Amino acid sequence: MSKLDIKNGVIEMGHGSGGRTSATLIEELFVRHFDNALLDQGNDQASFPVPAGRMVISTDGHVITPLFFPGGDIGSLSVHGTINDVAMSGAKPLYLSASFILEEGFPLADLERIVISMAKASKSAGVPVVTGDTKVVERGKGDGVFITTTGIGIVPDGINISGDLAKPGDVIIVSGSIGDHGIAILSSREGLQFGTTIESDSAALHGLVADMVAVAADIRCLRDPTRGGLATTLNELARQSKVGMRIQETAIPIKAEVKGACELLGLDPLYIANEGKLVCIVPAKDAEHLLAAMHKHPLGQGAAIIGTTCEDAQKMVVMETAFGGNRVVDWLAGEQLPRIC
Amino acid sequence: MSKLDIKNGVIEMGHGSGGRTSATLIEELFVRHFDNALLDQGNDQASFPVPAGRMVISTDGHVITPLFFPGGDIGSLSVHGTINDVAMSGAKPLYLSASFILEEGFPLADLERIVISMAKASKSAGVPVVTGDTKVVERGKGDGVFITTTGIGIVPDGINISGDLAKPGDVIIVSGSIGDHGIAILSSREGLQFGTTIESDSAALHGLVADMVAVAADIRCLRDPTRGGLATTLNELARQSKVGMRIQETAIPIKAEVKGACELLGLDPLYIANEGKLVCIVPAKDAEHLLAAMHKHPLGQGAAIIGTTCEDAQKMVVMETAFGGNRVVDWLAGEQLPRIC
Repeated sequence: MSKLDIKNGVIEMGHGSGGRTSATLIEELFVRHFDNALLDQGNDQASFPVPAGRMVISTDGHVITPLFFPGGDIGSLSVHGTINDVAMSGAKPLYLSASFILEEGFPLADLERIVISMAKASKSAGVPVVTGDTKVVERGKGDGVFITTTGIGIVPDGINISGDLAKPGDVIIVSGSIGDHGIAILSSREGLQFGTTIESDSAALHGLVADMVAVAADIRCLRDPTRGGLATTLNELARQSKVGMRIQETAIPIKAEVKGACELLGLDPLYIANEGKLVCIVPAKDAEHLLAAMHKHPLGQGAAIIGTTCEDAQKMVVMETAFGGNRVVDWLAGEQLPRIC
Repeated sequence: MSKLDIKNGVIEMGHGSGGRTSATLIEELFVRHFDNALLDQGNDQASFPVPAGRMVISTDGHVITPLFFPGGDIGSLSVHGTINDVAMSGAKPLYLSASFILEEGFPLADLERIVISMAKASKSAGVPVVTGDTKVVERGKGDGVFITTTGIGIVPDGINISGDLAKPGDVIIVSGSIGDHGIAILSSREGLQFGTTIESDSAALHGLVADMVAVAADIRCLRDPTRGGLATTLNELARQSKVGMRIQETAIPIKAEVKGACELLGLDPLYIANEGKLVCIVPAKDAEHLLAAMHKHPLGQGAAIIGTTCEDAQKMVVMETAFGGNRVVDWLAGEQLPRIC
């Protein structure tokens, strides 16, 4: 079969035909870099043994712009994002699928760079991409590349984590500084410079989660505060669990440069997306030793207790501000930063 | 929360924000119509028990144009397509995930029509959509709606079906008439009239597959001849299994109106996509009773033996034509009908 001209070639409609041109793209780019036995089966599905137990499935479409940004790209993000959604059930992620929607004219060199990054993120996380699909749309009917990943995982016995399980008196923990991803994307998009480069926190959190459930099997809720930021995630959990929340502004970790960028741009860091952070709600009795365990993991070093849950029929999230006042933290309304993931 | 104006409203960037506007769309459209307990969990992943065994995962992006066509729409297609990819391993499909990439300005009424169709196809197949994701791209950066579905399923004990298992002397069966889907799309796209309306064959094949594996546990290969058509699927299987194939043109079922349309348009029906057909390779000893079982199923009534496999180091697919000659049937080269699924 003819070789792809990765250096100078672009995506053509034929790459989505399902015929020989598609097969060349799949073999020379996807199969080559993802490189695993299940994908090599070459069927339209991947097959693997599972033990009896509880499984989870999660899916995420990725339409981020720009495709390449400080700290990552759409490839690594599409691996991290879905691994994290699987991990937020306490599950060990097993496998990923990947569906590409490519725009005619997209440079093959850029696509290879994305696939290599995806393969690297997937290998580093130990969660292989075992099946996939590629479609091509005409120039002007897409935007370079969209990637939908789906992940499946197995929940360890005895773990029962869900957004509706928080109870009044629980402790709310965030795993590290907030707002890094959104500000990295925004500054990259607008060509803004803030002295130091702010990098996305995009990372796979399943290792941190494994360490957490190992020391605190009673964790009630885990969720990654992506689109809509910390504020929206807390409101989602408050609503699902039918509790109120009281958080302390001074306790919320945020990098000085992110804070500065937010002030400059008039943005509230509570609503800025994260891609390598999690929110955890845990019974008060477990909070301190869970926090200690999180601090030992590279992705939990900045973990902090930021508040507690309480009885509240209104399910409100209220923040005690740095100035000692109280402010209702509502859901994100409208659209703050489009296409952030 | 504010209600969606389904009748007059359109997709706005805020529907992809992850905030309150997103939540409204998800609740009033997706959760409402897909309507199942796992989706109602309201988490970023769905969780369910599984027995020990062999599972499969498969994913497919759907970018078909037009979105609505005779015999289906992108919603039903995205359910059938992925159920079929799961079923082609012999598996019983269990669950689907769905990721939507919506274009700003897309009418909510059209989206609801698609979601209702998807929900209907999913319920009729008994395979619920248990988790999902919604992203929005700016006007001109997408094309209405793209849907990626991922399916998982469980393979019954004792079933081992894969594209690389065909052996020389096996029998090749196709489950019914070929080319219906591609011609339906093409005529709908171009506004062509062929006397009678040609409808897509879009259908979920897992029920037919269940009946097939029940009577012929030794089935070697199953594949649905979608993009690239029957010709490409046969070539894929020949290459994977390292066999040649001999097929008879007169044995291949094709409707008179599809044949007529292909002649008129200068298209070869062997390369036209199908969305409700399968190719099966089975040991010769099982062929006749398998065919009899297929004929009893509504989706297998037109099943026919179309040829046999043979030893061939070149892995060629050769067709004995209606005129008695021989023709090499190659892979689809280039692009015949873009965005057919």
